[in-house]
Amino acid sequence: MRGRTYDEISIGDTGSFSKTITESDIHSFSAITADFNAIHVDEVYATTSSLGKKMGGRIAQGMLSASLFSTLVGMYIPGKGALYVSQTCNFKRPVKIGDTITAECRVIEKMEKFRIRMITTCKNQRDEIVIEGEAIAIAARQTEDVV
Amino acid sequence: MRGRTYDEISIGDTGSFSKTITESDIHSFSAITADFNAIHVDEVYATTSSLGKKMGGRIAQGMLSASLFSTLVGMYIPGKGALYVSQTCNFKRPVKIGDTITAECRVIEKMEKFRIRMITTCKNQRDEIVIEGEAIAIAARQTEDVV
Amino acid sequence: MRGRTYDEISIGDTGSFSKTITESDIHSFSAITADFNAIHVDEVYATTSSLGKKMGGRIAQGMLSASLFSTLVGMYIPGKGALYVSQTCNFKRPVKIGDTITAECRVIEKMEKFRIRMITTCKNQRDEIVIEGEAIAIAARQTEDVV
Amino acid sequence: MRGRTYDEISIGDTGSFSKTITESDIHSFSAITADFNAIHVDEVYATTSSLGKKMGGRIAQGMLSASLFSTLVGMYIPGKGALYVSQTCNFKRPVKIGDTITAECRVIEKMEKFRIRMITTCKNQRDEIVIEGEAIAIAARQTEDVV
Repeated sequence: MRGRTYDEISIGDTGSFSKTITESDIHSFSAITADFNAIHVDEVYATTSSLGKKMGGRIAQGMLSASLFSTLVGMYIPGKGALYVSQTCNFKRPVKIGDTITAECRVIEKMEKFRIRMITTCKNQRDEIVIEGEAIAIAARQTEDVV
Repeated sequence: MRGRTYDEISIGDTGSFSKTITESDIHSFSAITADFNAIHVDEVYATTSSLGKKMGGRIAQGMLSASLFSTLVGMYIPGKGALYVSQTCNFKRPVKIGDTITAECRVIEKMEKFRIRMITTCKNQRDEIVIEGEAIAIAARQTEDVV
Repeated sequence: MRGRTYDEISIGDTGSFSKTITESDIHSFSAITADFNAIHVDEVYATTSSLGKKMGGRIAQGMLSASLFSTLVGMYIPGKGALYVSQTCNFKRPVKIGDTITAECRVIEKMEKFRIRMITTCKNQRDEIVIEGEAIAIAARQTEDVV
Repeated sequence: MRGRTYDEISIGDTGSFSKTITESDIHSFSAITADFNAIHVDEVYATTSSLGKKMGGRIAQGMLSASLFSTLVGMYIPGKGALYVSQTCNFKRPVKIGDTITAECRVIEKMEKFRIRMITTCKNQRDEIVIEGEAIAIAARQTEDVV
């Protein structure tokens, strides 16, 4: 998949990627990070504690869904040739096993030094925002870095 | 592992977790997120493109290292019973295969509604900051949710 | 996460860790060990053979649950700085997909040469013992090895 | 692979399985168990702490290698139809990344109730014993459970 150079990106450009979050994704994410918090991996805690009852059972790590922003930057806008500068994440709603998350980005500013600013959101299958934030990335200057 | 209630957390409390980032971590992270950007998984691109040369070869996804902040919140402070509210991530330096990353957090504010604010950083084995940011999390009120 | 030196460990100290055992855990464990016994990975065998009927379907490898004892020794008591000396495992009941296992340890003896002896058990969500045994580990002498 | 019924097993029967232990095996084992002890996953700790220096760098979890005993019972003797009763593990030497471990079992007793007792060992590529112990397993009575 070809990336886009700075010159090929326009304000308003959008990208999106959707994925169902499975129990196995949650366990793999624990595997990488060592985040085995009980609300993610302990079904008994997740169904009997007051936090678990509030969440309605086990939930995915917030940073798992937020990591789909990495996919937007690395695979969509700018895609190949991109360098990630910053990301903010406001976790609004829990993601449960089996939820289908759509990560979306929209370019809102072309900045100096080949940087672009994007609004990034994750929504669930009910179109509710589960995470919102902003990403800044540096796009490649030259075509040879995006092919 | 017992978590900490809001009352048990003090300004200045710290936590840390260290892990060597392997090629297999990078591929697992790609597997979860679909972020298969060439700078992470394509050794040829990572050694021949101008971006790759600048980075010095394949690098880990920035959000992979940032996901260790999830571990700090979920396993250390507050740990069990925590609810993640927000995270900011400023990516300062690349993380290469074999780098050992230490994620650290320090409580800087106890806020209303049982929230705590923490400075979060990832450093490499040369004590260079690779990511810095802030986390806000809600700590449990009651002991029964942290045991 | 700080470990405990030999001097910081007392008889009666306890640690525990809980995790829901998923189908993906069983397959990952097969992947590491090459234990692809049909009772673990073959749903037809596990529902039609006399052994499978007795077990009530596929079950997790006993050593998978027993490996949570490694977590107790490596992350809880003694935690960082520990050296595992021995483990016994008596498999009492099968663990099925979706069972939530709580591994617990309790220090019962401080031995010579910085060794500690612990009772280790795995229980399921019905508080039934699925594995019981004993662990011996060497704890660090010096604080510098546990931080 | 066909298993063996109790009647088909004789004292002195042996089985073995060899595998090189990789960094990715260690991380996968951490993934399943949540055992992220620094001696396994933190290259800096494993090369600078006194324990790490004694071990000569990162080592595999002892229970990872011991889990190859599960493979012997589940895939070799008795193999299909087996039910694991108990396992003891004495950890004698560390296993390092890249070591090739051979797990071996030898039947030493046929017990009542269709049980067999075996000596189990793991040796490294220098033929040094890294783990030794005993396994007891129940073998199937009927041919139909081992095919």
